[in-house]
This record gives sequence, structure tokens and C-alpha cells, in this order.
Amino acid sequence: MTPTLRWTGDSIEIIDQTRLPAELVLLDVRDVASAVDAIERLAIRGAPALGAFGALALVVGLDEAQPGSLDAARELLERLRHDIGDARPTAVNLRWAVDRTIDAALAAADSLSPSSTANASDPDGHSDDSSSAGGVAELRQRLLDEALAIGEEDARACAEIGRFGRELLADATVIATHCNAGRLATAGTGTALGVVYAKAAAGEPVRVLAAETRPLLQGARLTAWELADAGIDVSVVADAAMASLIAGGEVDAVIVGADRIAANGDTANKVGTLAHALAAADAGIEFYIAAPTTTIDAALPSGECIAIEQRNPDEVHHAGGTRLTPTDAVAVNPAFDVTPARLITAIITDAGVLRPPYDQSIARALAAAGGVRRGLSEC
Amino acid sequence: MTPTLRWTGDSIEIIDQTRLPAELVLLDVRDVASAVDAIERLAIRGAPALGAFGALALVVGLDEAQPGSLDAARELLERLRHDIGDARPTAVNLRWAVDRTIDAALAAADSLSPSSTANASDPDGHSDDSSSAGGVAELRQRLLDEALAIGEEDARACAEIGRFGRELLADATVIATHCNAGRLATAGTGTALGVVYAKAAAGEPVRVLAAETRPLLQGARLTAWELADAGIDVSVVADAAMASLIAGGEVDAVIVGADRIAANGDTANKVGTLAHALAAADAGIEFYIAAPTTTIDAALPSGECIAIEQRNPDEVHHAGGTRLTPTDAVAVNPAFDVTPARLITAIITDAGVLRPPYDQSIARALAAAGGVRRGLSEC
Repeated sequence: MTPTLRWTGDSIEIIDQTRLPAELVLLDVRDVASAVDAIERLAIRGAPALGAFGALALVVGLDEAQPGSLDAARELLERLRHDIGDARPTAVNLRWAVDRTIDAALAAADSLSPSSTANASDPDGHSDDSSSAGGVAELRQRLLDEALAIGEEDARACAEIGRFGRELLADATVIATHCNAGRLATAGTGTALGVVYAKAAAGEPVRVLAAETRPLLQGARLTAWELADAGIDVSVVADAAMASLIAGGEVDAVIVGADRIAANGDTANKVGTLAHALAAADAGIEFYIAAPTTTIDAALPSGECIAIEQRNPDEVHHAGGTRLTPTDAVAVNPAFDVTPARLITAIITDAGVLRPPYDQSIARALAAAGGVRRGLSEC
Repeated sequence: MTPTLRWTGDSIEIIDQTRLPAELVLLDVRDVASAVDAIERLAIRGAPALGAFGALALVVGLDEAQPGSLDAARELLERLRHDIGDARPTAVNLRWAVDRTIDAALAAADSLSPSSTANASDPDGHSDDSSSAGGVAELRQRLLDEALAIGEEDARACAEIGRFGRELLADATVIATHCNAGRLATAGTGTALGVVYAKAAAGEPVRVLAAETRPLLQGARLTAWELADAGIDVSVVADAAMASLIAGGEVDAVIVGADRIAANGDTANKVGTLAHALAAADAGIEFYIAAPTTTIDAALPSGECIAIEQRNPDEVHHAGGTRLTPTDAVAVNPAFDVTPARLITAIITDAGVLRPPYDQSIARALAAAGGVRRGLSEC
């Protein structure tokens, strides 16, 4: 199977997900503008995949700019921290991975050249050229190591989520999901679909009902493609039909991914998730979030603090290139919604299955994972 | 404004709603096959419009077949009762209007030629040609009168629903709706949108959030078209986004139409309605059904008895002619869902606003409207 993203040695090769399912097209990303473009137009998407990709894009950015000194490299990385890290506002993993990679590389650089203020006596602000070039090369290696580590950790997290989720859903056969939280969304087997792949790998019967996920149809295009590609039984349904199928007893459990989880368990995910959660709660079936702990933003006390990305209304006006609405119509296009913690049966993470009350289980999981990571205060 | 359907004197002229919003194309329906085709491919849709259209299609069928005797006309009508009346299984108005029109015409025919058994002594089973032709002509007139009356009654019902709904929603400005329950769905100003038109006509501020209504996009195509055409502020949203907008306080009330209402108030409507009802209940905002009393099927004790039409999966695989899913993908495509009465704040009918407990308010409304009409027992 073609990997979702791969470091080639001097560029990032990704599946252009905007071309699926009609054709499998690979993109070779070797400059920052292309990387930001790929993020913005969702050629690559899914919070964990965005993290791994954004981190690698820093290396691409360094190679593109070829800074002549460590100070210039530091300046460049601070610019990329925003240009790449903020390319999509809701996906916390992207910003987190970019920060982590830059901070690790800068810490290493500081140990070479203790701080830029140490060069303050040099009127040009430059240190010796040859040692700078060596410093930049080491900085690049440190960036690359950290970026690759993020992808490897994500693949391990997917495997762990699959393992915990399979135990939890031993009795579930028909699993409903929204959007795409699979191998196309991660550097591994996926989060929500990681559980599905784990069930299938264990020889358990499993069938997926994939909500098509308008406007960009990640369910119809990506989830349907990657599951069928893996030989797993999948049926596509309109988003609007899922509540009815859940109410009618045709679904054993709902599992979705997450773009950001607040400290109290409120979860931002692709718009449409909330409706499935409400239907599951009303029907008394289980509703799970599956996400790595990196998706948790402990700085956000609740979902009310999560800024919702408003995307281009043209996405609603069109499907597959066809205009659907009258030419002068107005559309509203929030990209995410927030499912309140009270509707979530459990959060399946790489650190185990978190249960309500989430403020406590999340705090414990983050502490066990090495302390509360820096979040993006928005509240 | 072009009427949704119109009797031309020897055919039915309808707006081909499959061509909206790109172009306004009129269809001239002058045989039964075209009428059934128009119903099946949703060139005409909306429960009340289907009733008025199906009744007129009986006249078209009589003109097409030109039966030589009243007995032949009776046989023909019994065939059309099924061919036209069952062209869409869930819309009770279609079957009801067809039954009502045929029964009224047959009762009139019986008064001319008391019963077909009266001709049993005639070995050919035919009565005198000239008197039969006169009988068939009278039968046709009675069919036409009844069919036109159904359309006129529907237009009056829409006006009454608008009047009652406007009083009820005096404080609501932003109204969410699903599918199309407007003038394109009725022989009048619509049910759910009848309320919107009544508010606008009274000079009250009103803005509509129209769920696009996948797979056939009646919201994006039809509701957006007819409201903009009438100068009313309308924004289209993905079905998946409505729960989020409701939860976020951006909607004052939800109003939708109905395809069938059971005696206990459970309501079948376009798939996706249930998700909006669940979101409204969770957010504590009002959720209304707007429908003529003809939509009530008193023979159905509850929504569990409502047969849900499963439509062609190709509707899910495509949007606007573009293939969305992988070519070998499977899709599930229920056309309706059932919103349980407990989620419905009130049912706005031409006989007034019905409140819970619905078994009582519905029984009273039907009794006041001239007794419980014949339903379609499916339980």
C-alpha cells in the first residue's frame, strides 16, 4: 500500500488526497509554498498526518532557503513556525509538531552556539561562515530526526489505539464513522480506522458505515477508498442518513477521530460528528473518540474555547466540480463542530481508554505521557 | 412566478425540478408512463404536490387509454390506482389523493350505471356504446373536478399553515429547514416555507438556513432557488453542519415538512430530519413539523409502522452528475427517517397547531376535518 506521506531524502512525497478516489497521484513537496498549499487545499489532511507532514516541511523550508548562518536559520524557523504551523487553525497536532520540531532543533543549535546574544559583539551579527554552515547542517539533521520521530511515534500511537480499541469493541461488528480517520489521516494505520484495521487483522468480522462527510466528502472518497483497498467491507451513506441508521439499530458503535480535545473531553472533529454523537446518545449506543494524546490541548479548559475554522463557501456550492446551488446563493461552511464530553462514551488513546470524568482521566494520561504539553491558549 | 404544476386542459405542465437550479424547464405530461417517470425520478416531488399531480395524472391516463365503456374505465382506474398511487411508497398524500379522486369519480359513475354487475346480463359485459361514451365523459369530468379540488384545497391549506405558523413563530428570525417544503413541494406556498413566506409577507425579518439535503440536494437546489427567487434571505449549509449551528445558538427554530405523520405524531420526512430534531432538542430550541392534515395517516399507530423507501444507491455515489465514491463502492440510501413525536414541539397544520399529547390533538383535528380518513395499514 502506498504510504500517505514519505520522506524521500530531500522532499516529502504525499498522496494527493484531493484526487482520490478517481486516481492515485503522488505529489513531491520540495518548497514551503507547496507544503502550505497542500495543507490548505487538503491534499494532505487528518490531524496526525498534518503533524508529521508539517514537521518534515520545516526541513524542506530549511533546504529551500539555505540560510548562511545559525541566526538566519533561527529567524527562518520562527517564520516557518507561523507559516506552516498556522496553515490550518483548528488542527492542534500541526502547530504542536511544528513547535516541537523547531524547539528540539533550536535547543540543539543553542548547545553549538549558546545563543544569538553571544554573537552580539560581532557587529555583523554573523559567526564564522564555515562553523555556521556546520551548525546549520547539524540543525537540519536535528529537525529531520525530530520530524521523522513524530511520524514514527504516530504510527506507534495508531497501533496502540488499535490494540486498546479492539479490546473495547470486541462485540461490535457494524461500526459507523465520519470523515477519514484512517491511514490517509495519519502516519500509521489511523485512529478510528486503526481500531477497524486491528479488528480485521485479528480475524474479527467488521463492517464500516462511512458517512460521506460533505462538503469535501472525505468519507465517500477516502474512507471508502482506503477500506476497500484493504479488503474491508464498507458502505457509504449520506451524512443525513446516519441518525436514522443508528436509531434503527443498524449500528453497533460509532468511532470517530479528533482534531482537538479540550481538557474536559469536549472534542472538535469534522463537522457532522456532533449529529452522530447526538443520535448515538439518543439510541443508547456507544460513541467513541479515537485519537493520540497529542490531539489533547490541555490549555483549553472546554470546547467553548476551540476556534472553529470557517472554510470557503464554494466547498458547499460544489461537489466534485459540479455547481449545486443557484449561482447567487450564499453558503455557510464551518469545518468542525464540537461534541460535548457528556456525549462521549470513552476516548481511545495510545495511553489507554479514557473514561469520564475526563478532566481527571485526561490529566492522568497526560501526566503519564510525560507531563502536560504546551497548548494553544485561546480561552 | 411559474407554478409548480398546472392543468393545461389536456395535460399537466410541471417544472422539471431535476433541472433546477441551473435552468427552469417545463415538462408537458400527457401519458401515464411520463407521469410515473416524473414521480419516480423526482421531477415533481413533495408530498402535497405529488397528491395534486397524481390526481391529475388519472385524467391524463383516462385520456390516453380512451376506454370505450364505463366498465373499461373502472378497470383502468383500478390499474392506475396502483400504477400511479404506488409510484412512491412513503408519500401518503399521493396514494390518498389517487384513492379520493378515483372513489369520487366511481361513485358518480355508479349513479349513472349503478354497478358493473347490473350489466352482467349483457354477455359482452359492455353497455350501449353511446351512453357509455357519455358516462366516460362524465366520469372524466368528475375525476378532473376532484383532482383540481385537491390542488385548490392544498393551496388553502398552505395559506392556513402560513397563518398559524406566523403567529407561533412571531419571535423567530433565523429558521432552519431541511429538504424543500415550499411552493415547489405543494400546490400553494408550501408548508414549512409557507410559514417563512407568511412572515415575509407580513414584513417580519426572516432568514432561512437551508440544509442542502443530500443525496438529491433539494435544499441546495430547490429551497435556495425558490426563496432567493422570492427575495428571501437564504444560506445553504451542509446537512452535517446544521447540528453545530443549532448548538451554537445561530438558529431560532427548525421547521420542516412531512411525508407521513402517524396517529401518535411520529413523523416521516426526508432523511436528515431526525438529526436536526435531535440537535434542536439537545439545544432546547423549538422543532416544528408543518404539514396539511392530509399528511396524517391515522391508520398508523406509530412511526415504527412507516415503511421507509430505499432509493437507488447511485444517488449517494453521485452529486450533480459527478461520481464521488470509488467505482466499486457500496452505498445505503434510505429516503426518509422517522422523527419521534417526543422531539416535536408542535405540528402546524391547516386545522391549527397541534401539541402533545399528539394522539389526542391529532384525533381531534381529524375529527374536526371531517372524520378520520382511510389510511394505509402497514402495521
